[in-house]
Amino acid sequence: MATFDLLITRCDVLVRQDDRYTVVNDHDIAIAGNRIIAILPSGQIDPNQAREHLDAAGLLAIPGLINCHTHAPMVLFRGLAEDVPIESWFNDYIWPLESNEQPEDIYWGALLGIAEMIQAGVTTFAEHYFFCDEIASAVEQSGVRANIGWAVFGHEGIEKLERTCRFVERWQGAAGGRITTWLAPHSPYLCDRDFLRATAERAKALGVGIHIHCSETHEQVAWSLRQYGVTPPVMLQQAGVFEVPTLLAHGIGLTADDLAMLKDYDVAVAQCPKTYMKLAMGTAPVRAMREAGLAVGIGTDGVVSSNTLDVLEQMRLLALDQKQAAKDSTVLPLQEVMDIAFEGGARALRQPAIGALAAGKLADVVLLRQDGAHLFPRHDPLANLIYSANAGDVEAVICDGKVLMRARRLLTIDLPAVKAEVARRLERLKQRAAEKRLATYPMSG
Amino acid sequence: MATFDLLITRCDVLVRQDDRYTVVNDHDIAIAGNRIIAILPSGQIDPNQAREHLDAAGLLAIPGLINCHTHAPMVLFRGLAEDVPIESWFNDYIWPLESNEQPEDIYWGALLGIAEMIQAGVTTFAEHYFFCDEIASAVEQSGVRANIGWAVFGHEGIEKLERTCRFVERWQGAAGGRITTWLAPHSPYLCDRDFLRATAERAKALGVGIHIHCSETHEQVAWSLRQYGVTPPVMLQQAGVFEVPTLLAHGIGLTADDLAMLKDYDVAVAQCPKTYMKLAMGTAPVRAMREAGLAVGIGTDGVVSSNTLDVLEQMRLLALDQKQAAKDSTVLPLQEVMDIAFEGGARALRQPAIGALAAGKLADVVLLRQDGAHLFPRHDPLANLIYSANAGDVEAVICDGKVLMRARRLLTIDLPAVKAEVARRLERLKQRAAEKRLATYPMSG
Repeated sequence: MATFDLLITRCDVLVRQDDRYTVVNDHDIAIAGNRIIAILPSGQIDPNQAREHLDAAGLLAIPGLINCHTHAPMVLFRGLAEDVPIESWFNDYIWPLESNEQPEDIYWGALLGIAEMIQAGVTTFAEHYFFCDEIASAVEQSGVRANIGWAVFGHEGIEKLERTCRFVERWQGAAGGRITTWLAPHSPYLCDRDFLRATAERAKALGVGIHIHCSETHEQVAWSLRQYGVTPPVMLQQAGVFEVPTLLAHGIGLTADDLAMLKDYDVAVAQCPKTYMKLAMGTAPVRAMREAGLAVGIGTDGVVSSNTLDVLEQMRLLALDQKQAAKDSTVLPLQEVMDIAFEGGARALRQPAIGALAAGKLADVVLLRQDGAHLFPRHDPLANLIYSANAGDVEAVICDGKVLMRARRLLTIDLPAVKAEVARRLERLKQRAAEKRLATYPMSG
Repeated sequence: MATFDLLITRCDVLVRQDDRYTVVNDHDIAIAGNRIIAILPSGQIDPNQAREHLDAAGLLAIPGLINCHTHAPMVLFRGLAEDVPIESWFNDYIWPLESNEQPEDIYWGALLGIAEMIQAGVTTFAEHYFFCDEIASAVEQSGVRANIGWAVFGHEGIEKLERTCRFVERWQGAAGGRITTWLAPHSPYLCDRDFLRATAERAKALGVGIHIHCSETHEQVAWSLRQYGVTPPVMLQQAGVFEVPTLLAHGIGLTADDLAMLKDYDVAVAQCPKTYMKLAMGTAPVRAMREAGLAVGIGTDGVVSSNTLDVLEQMRLLALDQKQAAKDSTVLPLQEVMDIAFEGGARALRQPAIGALAAGKLADVVLLRQDGAHLFPRHDPLANLIYSANAGDVEAVICDGKVLMRARRLLTIDLPAVKAEVARRLERLKQRAAEKRLATYPMSG
């Protein structure tokens, strides 16, 4: 074997064999550049060929977690909209709060959110927010992987859409390929058909996909039927959105007909169950999505609804919410939760080289401690990972071959400095003036 | 101030003021013996009077968490019954597995479970299990607080019930009062009226309460109506159970009439939402319980359904499950979740000296780190505690005035040794022979 960059030694490794996830014990992982080149039983790879070693004895290696839908800089507002109904959540909290944001706030908010994601083992996220140059800079510096879409409302007009296209041109493929960019119209209820058609045309011309909220609640579906005579996905389809790779956030109100149509276009869906439960939005038809053959991935949404950027927690909540809603404890079994989190996340983001630990894949590796009492015995390592582990067990994080956290110490982000910068901004950021809101949630109209 | 034992310095403290939970910053907590004697702004208590110091700068002090219903030694079986229906869960997994248990298994299982609880900030638990002398020994040695009830099935006969009464006599008030004991008939579906009447008489004579599963599912209520012509709580009431302090586990199927009657007897209910979601049992009428004036506390249940003994996680799931089921994001607001976890837990266990940080209360104190990125900013410290913190943030644990964990190091339990002892037993313990099961879940009969 030629000289390589990093050897992670003596860990247990979550792998996929014959379409099933399983844990193999006591393996070494060899990384060259940003790729995994070998995963073999400990001792079979010559450690002298590695430029750097990471002793992972007793740790569990899993693929870097994939967050398929988030608004990371919203960490700035964590805890500012508790126990409120969804309409008030938008109109009285989120959109007034967001009107306070200036580009530099977003830079620091993104760094804080990325720090939280690294600490929780998330190495890739699909971002849907504003001031994306600042977010891209934070991604570039912190070493994670992100798909970034600049959120835009229809009422902001085509000129604003054009500006988000310029963002795509500036950043697509940046940071050695860690950054990809899509277009990100907010939703079918805040972008009309013409605006969406213009978005789709530009996405096609740019060769990028579209990340958009869709059918977040049953109420939105009823509104769309009143407004457009069709469900939100049909409205998107009519506007040509699905002619480019598309990722829908949420989809609680997707119908059986929607799902069949979405499958024809290979549209993916991100699931953020903590938000759905906390805002009492209902339970998404995840089994039907999967049966229809859609790619389903896990997201965290923004922390003003979900309070964390913790994908492990969302995996657990996805299964718990689905079981409870189906009145059937056999649905979303362990293997399927794993499949959604890893394979599903990679498919949803059209990044087949992430979401798995195997030779040839990108070197996004998370190492979890297993010595907590809550992780013993290990009769079923998948059950322990999904239902017992927590973000506090994440010990080290590698993304794109580079170590971002080691012994829980962040190596690319100065967290105390980030917090100090954020703290200086909070007094201004937490003001709420309803008349200053960015948009209005139209469902009651 | 006279000399005292322990001074916890410079922490933020979760306190209750005017019936509302709030966090005061930068306080010191003075402890003498097993009691809190003062909580004052840092600097007001003379540190030279304290025999021991615990620097808690930057940490958040909360009352020791209260686990109102668990089967701690079931940690032995963690992960052995995943994704199965409730009837199979009992008949094909739990009761066959438990038939393998020998007293010494329970001792090591209890220590492992207690280690997990300490690591998760739980200082008091209500235990409902077998071989309780071994559990009591584990409690005594590890320094936590527990109410222990020896679980008994009606088919085991009055002689077995008598043996559980002898356990009460041996251990009531032991370990300097840290151990209390109740009687613990399994349930109205596995204990008939005569057996329950005999249990109630003995509890009254012993001056102890009763901890029992009740109306765990709607199916059990229907079964009770067929079998006895009344709901499970009415059957218990008719047997005289409520003439002693009673704690019901679960109560998903409690009716409005049940709740009014239970209030007359001041019966308490333990809520373990992770189990309800994982086993798809439905959502308990927690708001109705609270409106009826019942004490409602949080439990973890055993880990074969809930996978952890983590009360913080259950607090979060309680709110999320209640909001989702009610289709109303305003239910179970932050203050009420806190009230259930602390005040409710203390009331449910009839231990008014726990569940609060205030002079005169028992010194059960948990210190949580707040430096993780997921806990910043702190716009709302209660939201951060309920929706963002996790067990990995628990840094130190004091129970009954004694430090049980410091800098995440367990001081009273040798966890590696406990794991080694447990590991030796697992091959035998994980066998399942249906014909050897302890009992049969009768709902389909």
